[in-house]
Amino acid sequence: MIPRIRLVLTDIDGVWTDGGLYYIQDVQPAKKFHTYDSFGVLALQMNGIEVGLLSGDDNPVMLSRAERLKIGLIRTGVRNKLAIADELRLERGLMWSEIAYIGDDVMDLNLLKAVGWSGTVPNAPQYVQEEVGFVTPVRGGEGAFRSFAEYLLDAFDLLDDTIAQIRKNS
Amino acid sequence: MIPRIRLVLTDIDGVWTDGGLYYIQDVQPAKKFHTYDSFGVLALQMNGIEVGLLSGDDNPVMLSRAERLKIGLIRTGVRNKLAIADELRLERGLMWSEIAYIGDDVMDLNLLKAVGWSGTVPNAPQYVQEEVGFVTPVRGGEGAFRSFAEYLLDAFDLLDDTIAQIRKNS
Amino acid sequence: MIPRIRLVLTDIDGVWTDGGLYYIQDVQPAKKFHTYDSFGVLALQMNGIEVGLLSGDDNPVMLSRAERLKIGLIRTGVRNKLAIADELRLERGLMWSEIAYIGDDVMDLNLLKAVGWSGTVPNAPQYVQEEVGFVTPVRGGEGAFRSFAEYLLDAFDLLDDTIAQIRKNS
Amino acid sequence: MIPRIRLVLTDIDGVWTDGGLYYIQDVQPAKKFHTYDSFGVLALQMNGIEVGLLSGDDNPVMLSRAERLKIGLIRTGVRNKLAIADELRLERGLMWSEIAYIGDDVMDLNLLKAVGWSGTVPNAPQYVQEEVGFVTPVRGGEGAFRSFAEYLLDAFDLLDDTIAQIRKNS
Repeated sequence: MIPRIRLVLTDIDGVWTDGGLYYIQDVQPAKKFHTYDSFGVLALQMNGIEVGLLSGDDNPVMLSRAERLKIGLIRTGVRNKLAIADELRLERGLMWSEIAYIGDDVMDLNLLKAVGWSGTVPNAPQYVQEEVGFVTPVRGGEGAFRSFAEYLLDAFDLLDDTIAQIRKNS
Repeated sequence: MIPRIRLVLTDIDGVWTDGGLYYIQDVQPAKKFHTYDSFGVLALQMNGIEVGLLSGDDNPVMLSRAERLKIGLIRTGVRNKLAIADELRLERGLMWSEIAYIGDDVMDLNLLKAVGWSGTVPNAPQYVQEEVGFVTPVRGGEGAFRSFAEYLLDAFDLLDDTIAQIRKNS
Repeated sequence: MIPRIRLVLTDIDGVWTDGGLYYIQDVQPAKKFHTYDSFGVLALQMNGIEVGLLSGDDNPVMLSRAERLKIGLIRTGVRNKLAIADELRLERGLMWSEIAYIGDDVMDLNLLKAVGWSGTVPNAPQYVQEEVGFVTPVRGGEGAFRSFAEYLLDAFDLLDDTIAQIRKNS
Repeated sequence: MIPRIRLVLTDIDGVWTDGGLYYIQDVQPAKKFHTYDSFGVLALQMNGIEVGLLSGDDNPVMLSRAERLKIGLIRTGVRNKLAIADELRLERGLMWSEIAYIGDDVMDLNLLKAVGWSGTVPNAPQYVQEEVGFVTPVRGGEGAFRSFAEYLLDAFDLLDDTIAQIRKNS
């Protein structure tokens, strides 16, 4: 049987957002997140799967989003995503096959090739789309992370039960 | 004759907005509403139909939008929308068939199934679209609530007169 | 010969913007304008045609936009656009045939029917689109006012020269 | 052999952004940039090609974006882009054939015709698209500058190596 996923890592800009950076006077660039992705985080966490954020950017608004979604694992200002992911992997005693990653640019390619489950968005550069296992049906910033989470849960036949349980509690 | 609608309840994120949450430093996440929806509220209120907002989120910017549109009925931070709607229903002595609801996610499903008139947006997850009576022609944040309001008023043959009256007064 | 246009009036929300209202904590709702429309204003003004803004909203960010574009004629918080436009018309001693208006909602219909040249956007409600002379090729907020201005100038064979002159000075 | 490009100049509004100007109370209009364009700047700079920003606007948020991307060459509030570009050209002892420019409006036409390599976006006015050598596959604000940079590097067979090198270091 295929090993279950234990850790889902994700890029921020271009995946959780449409890549947009709103430059507003006197504050850090704003980012537009999407409410649908919160369901993806919840659905993974309910199944005992950890979610972690990896970003090359160091903008503190990402910490606000992580806090809101009760995501404790976040690394910003990352230069080498593969190296950071490998540290996280070893700390948790995981195999690469138990880790998933979704990213959308050149700096994500090495990590996308290393993990057992890789994804990107349909508006990523073509040379990124060619190297992943799953391209989300929706664009970055429109619930792409949720789509990736649903794809992963569905691969292990966990999605329908998760939806049913969230529905029951609402 | 079918009972007239007396109360139209609506989700916010993904219906009144495109689901976007603008994370800006030092303030609550901003939300982008649409001017077309204000006509929907006005048209319903002119016909003696109450409009109420139900949101799982607790962001105070929703109160500003409600105040601007003279909507007095708003519940934020809602965990169980069906339970809240049932309270509102009983307070007003209404049947479910006299209530409409538009929502777009798993947490909306139970209430969508309970009301007499249900709607969602075309970008909602497929499993939500399958359980409602009406899918708006426009996406969330582009006037979806107005579309739902016009659909409801048209079902009771009230739309054309309402438009004519608003036009006369402008 | 058809009388030349002397005054171009325009709605703001849904024409100069996509109808979006960004609710941000502690400030008035933000509006997203488009740089292309500034060319429309300039091109009309260069031909001695006055531009005026009419909005039902009273948000002061519209004044900032008008000031930036050197538009002195702006009326906000307007309840009855036809009445205001008639005042402006009489003050200037104009015929309705010398006035153009672009708007996108029910509250614009009476004025759209009164003027000699009327326009709207392709995402306006169908019952508005049916009552105007020109539907812009681009949506509101994507340069719709510029499209309307170019359409008007072209109708009087003034567009090509205007573009050539702006190009020469740049 | 064709002379290599030494300087890439670029317009901001409509190219780096979708042309949107977010009017927010009490601050300068905000602009939405895109993370993909940062790769374009980096890829050009790695190949010894200077990047410079030219804008008719004088909004200081453009300086923040330039600083973030380590772009030292920026001219804002420019009335005559051709004249400014010619100064920059002479200072560097370059031929026009060694300079590229991407812009999207009437005020860009003269410079677009002067440079050896010209580009625009697919949502630019038709009369601009007709006068350039390259129309980016994506709209302004969705990574158009990156597309232009990749097109230029590819013309000199530098793109694949550049991507490989950025990937190796990440």
